[in-house]
Amino acid sequence: MFYQYPSVQKLYQLSKNPIDLTDPQYLTVERIQEFLIQTEEILYFYGMQRVTSEVLDLLYRLAKESLCVEKMKAMQNGEIVNSIVGFASEHRQVLHTASRDFFDHANESLEAKKAAKTALEEVEKLQMFCAQIDRDDRWTDIVQIGIGGSDLGPRAIATALEAYYKKNRRIHFISNVDPDDVAGLLKQLDLSTTLFISVSKSGTTLETLTNEYFVKEALKAARLHPKNHMISVTGKGSPMDDPSQYLASFYIWDYIGGRYSCTSMVGGVVLALAMGFDRFIEFLRGAHQMDVMAKIKDPSKNLPLHGALLGIWNRNFLSYPTVAIIPYAQVLHRFSAHLQQLDMESNGKQIDQQGKHVSYQTGPVIWGEPGTNGQHSFYQFLHQGTDIVPVEFIGFVQSTYEKDLSFEKSTSQEKLLSNLLAQSIALAQGYFDKNPNKNFPGNRPNSLMFFSKLTPKTMGMLLSYYEHKIAFQGFIWGINSFDQEGVQLGKRIAEKMLHLFQGIAEDFPLGAAFLEKIFTLKK
Amino acid sequence: MFYQYPSVQKLYQLSKNPIDLTDPQYLTVERIQEFLIQTEEILYFYGMQRVTSEVLDLLYRLAKESLCVEKMKAMQNGEIVNSIVGFASEHRQVLHTASRDFFDHANESLEAKKAAKTALEEVEKLQMFCAQIDRDDRWTDIVQIGIGGSDLGPRAIATALEAYYKKNRRIHFISNVDPDDVAGLLKQLDLSTTLFISVSKSGTTLETLTNEYFVKEALKAARLHPKNHMISVTGKGSPMDDPSQYLASFYIWDYIGGRYSCTSMVGGVVLALAMGFDRFIEFLRGAHQMDVMAKIKDPSKNLPLHGALLGIWNRNFLSYPTVAIIPYAQVLHRFSAHLQQLDMESNGKQIDQQGKHVSYQTGPVIWGEPGTNGQHSFYQFLHQGTDIVPVEFIGFVQSTYEKDLSFEKSTSQEKLLSNLLAQSIALAQGYFDKNPNKNFPGNRPNSLMFFSKLTPKTMGMLLSYYEHKIAFQGFIWGINSFDQEGVQLGKRIAEKMLHLFQGIAEDFPLGAAFLEKIFTLKK
Repeated sequence: MFYQYPSVQKLYQLSKNPIDLTDPQYLTVERIQEFLIQTEEILYFYGMQRVTSEVLDLLYRLAKESLCVEKMKAMQNGEIVNSIVGFASEHRQVLHTASRDFFDHANESLEAKKAAKTALEEVEKLQMFCAQIDRDDRWTDIVQIGIGGSDLGPRAIATALEAYYKKNRRIHFISNVDPDDVAGLLKQLDLSTTLFISVSKSGTTLETLTNEYFVKEALKAARLHPKNHMISVTGKGSPMDDPSQYLASFYIWDYIGGRYSCTSMVGGVVLALAMGFDRFIEFLRGAHQMDVMAKIKDPSKNLPLHGALLGIWNRNFLSYPTVAIIPYAQVLHRFSAHLQQLDMESNGKQIDQQGKHVSYQTGPVIWGEPGTNGQHSFYQFLHQGTDIVPVEFIGFVQSTYEKDLSFEKSTSQEKLLSNLLAQSIALAQGYFDKNPNKNFPGNRPNSLMFFSKLTPKTMGMLLSYYEHKIAFQGFIWGINSFDQEGVQLGKRIAEKMLHLFQGIAEDFPLGAAFLEKIFTLKK
Repeated sequence: MFYQYPSVQKLYQLSKNPIDLTDPQYLTVERIQEFLIQTEEILYFYGMQRVTSEVLDLLYRLAKESLCVEKMKAMQNGEIVNSIVGFASEHRQVLHTASRDFFDHANESLEAKKAAKTALEEVEKLQMFCAQIDRDDRWTDIVQIGIGGSDLGPRAIATALEAYYKKNRRIHFISNVDPDDVAGLLKQLDLSTTLFISVSKSGTTLETLTNEYFVKEALKAARLHPKNHMISVTGKGSPMDDPSQYLASFYIWDYIGGRYSCTSMVGGVVLALAMGFDRFIEFLRGAHQMDVMAKIKDPSKNLPLHGALLGIWNRNFLSYPTVAIIPYAQVLHRFSAHLQQLDMESNGKQIDQQGKHVSYQTGPVIWGEPGTNGQHSFYQFLHQGTDIVPVEFIGFVQSTYEKDLSFEKSTSQEKLLSNLLAQSIALAQGYFDKNPNKNFPGNRPNSLMFFSKLTPKTMGMLLSYYEHKIAFQGFIWGINSFDQEGVQLGKRIAEKMLHLFQGIAEDFPLGAAFLEKIFTLKK
């Protein structure tokens, strides 16, 4: 499909001779000012990408030819976009946008309205629950038990918004089936003032049920009644939708994929308990604002689409295999891990929606750590390695806590921003030195996204930006970004392996060979 | 250089037709048992790599031709291996191994003995200091202030060994110049019982001095005397070697690179305060044990060399651009970030030691998160993405806290290990399904390293394994793994940028153009 778009053929021709950013004609003041998308709240600089107006025009044409904005509207309006034609597949709607579709410019289909209404009911339930929790005034610690989508996103966002927490409230997460994960946390907590949120859409996730069992046993050992300390977020009617076991249950639906569930109750309960209900609504408002932008037809006004197109240029035409996402904000230190899941689980696919093997690269490896820390770590590779990594920088003009000091005539925030801008320029521009070891080849593309400040609202915008950037790329590649069949085989083999541990007969000589060896180590 | 080795030419021929692991003749019980390195404490399975005995023989020959074991010995014995011939360079010894070279089988050169003796003096100073701290019995929280090598490694290891901490001791890290990093931590601490460790070899690291200034101001605001709450780890005679400002100072030397400094006082002080001096010595003992192994000539008995060779096969001959390091141990959740620094800052180079531009790929992108969490995140990509990522799995037979429960007939540790082994097999073996979306292509190489349990000693072994694996790859590629000139350009431009913030005249129109735009966002 992808290769059949006329624009793709032309882009392929142009990509044989892309611009070199170290050529002084390119990195000019005019280019910085022109290759820019500006809204009231966001600045997005892409002058350090290896694109010309000609490339951009063709990318915009690709957006048109692939009908990706139409597909975005179809998605938000509840059409079945999670499917593979002609083969058994999940065959579902994809309606995470409905979980925040109760502000201005709501989607108009009946399906979207229905999903938004159901979502709003949960939000209102949550509002009452938060008020009750405030009245009770007894919980100091909130622990979310979940894995994958029920962990990475909520954890990344809760961590990012720590400055906005209610006083004396601490938030923790248990995810891994590794018994050390739960044991390490439990020994720090006063269980009598701790509330646990168990999160599993199906109510059957192995890791989550196992960790919940640990928690319940610990509560019992502390002479506490588990039910009084646990709430659940799950599908209606799942084994975890059980008033005899939980103080309350909040619902999610199968049209909200795990990795897209941050703005549903999966992220909602923990975020509202952490920072208060009103701030959670601001977070939703920001996400919704980006949802609306994602439906704009003109790619130069549609940020997630624009980001998607530049990503496709770097991935399919300049052939860069990875993307680094580097926020210059320490509190975003788990955000890249969330985006790693969001992107790689969505677009790490090799079958298109017709079930055909693709003949082009799909989603890249996503990785990253915050700056300035990364500068003292992997930036050596970014500047002088043999491979090129496109970088997506994220910055905020103001600090979150607004507790800053001046040291040696500049504030920390000024130092942070100076470093961010300097790296963007240095990677693109390079520097010639006669000493080959001090020479910087440059021509390393990057973009810069700036917000005024990290707030619940801008966090919502940033999250939704990436959700849609990824969805747009999937639409353009013609793949299904919303299933995850690739996780099934490991589960099936793990079950056989577990049988070997349990002494249940299994025809699995390879597994048995491993086990035999491993037990020679055990003391 | 690399391409001149006869083995490289032959490997290149073989790499045109590498084995396919999905061919049933390969993944056999015999192969699992044979493609294995076993010591008393470690099991290293590499049968799931795309190698044959013929490939292995040639890789072993490459080790011989490149003289890499001789170079390892030269390094440990204090020869100047950090240099570029014919150009200004750091021109230094590389003696991080000396920081733990006071057990059996010590290196015998005068230089190595001298460095080990100096290191031991600091260790003894630390022992006395720890005893004093124990007697004082007043510190509840220890905070390390450092960045890059003074942060990632110590943080990863301290986090990994949390189960071994002394009672009522909490460890924290401040690294980023982002003012939110220090502000977020300070508001949680009781400063009167907090001890800060400032770490900078030069005593001039911008981020660290800035954060130290924040801390001192906070101590003063709490009517505490900064000197009574601060110790330093720095070079002798640096601005931070100052008894008027610090309770104590511990020393490091320029022959210990930041990213290789975990076993020096950079990691030593915080680790010994966290878990006690004796456990810190066990950590050093483990690292040293691997140092000794790294000098064994036979690659089949030299684990880090063996790992390096397989990495080179994957990188230079099978052309995989990234490596995922995935520990099945949640407490190792920062270890991949440390290895990202260690590897990418060491081997993200494009100049060989003769100052010539290399014509082959050097260090890959290193990334990873713990399993089983990754299974619910990026494993979709690992199994079904269009790119192949070699995986280095790390496992432990027993859990660290040894607090485990049986749920649905198996313990959490058994579930964890079952998943680990299952993933290794699934990635290599794949699975055919008529539904293309449920088909697993397999043939995705990986290795498995097992220890009996994560202890200070095995953590030391694991750390040293990677330090030497990376050094061996650098030796074979003929590059200098021990400098980091690639970080300089960004620093220089950041300084110019900072001048713009301070209103100091700078001929830097590009920087000014960015700033002007960014301030339009500022509220």
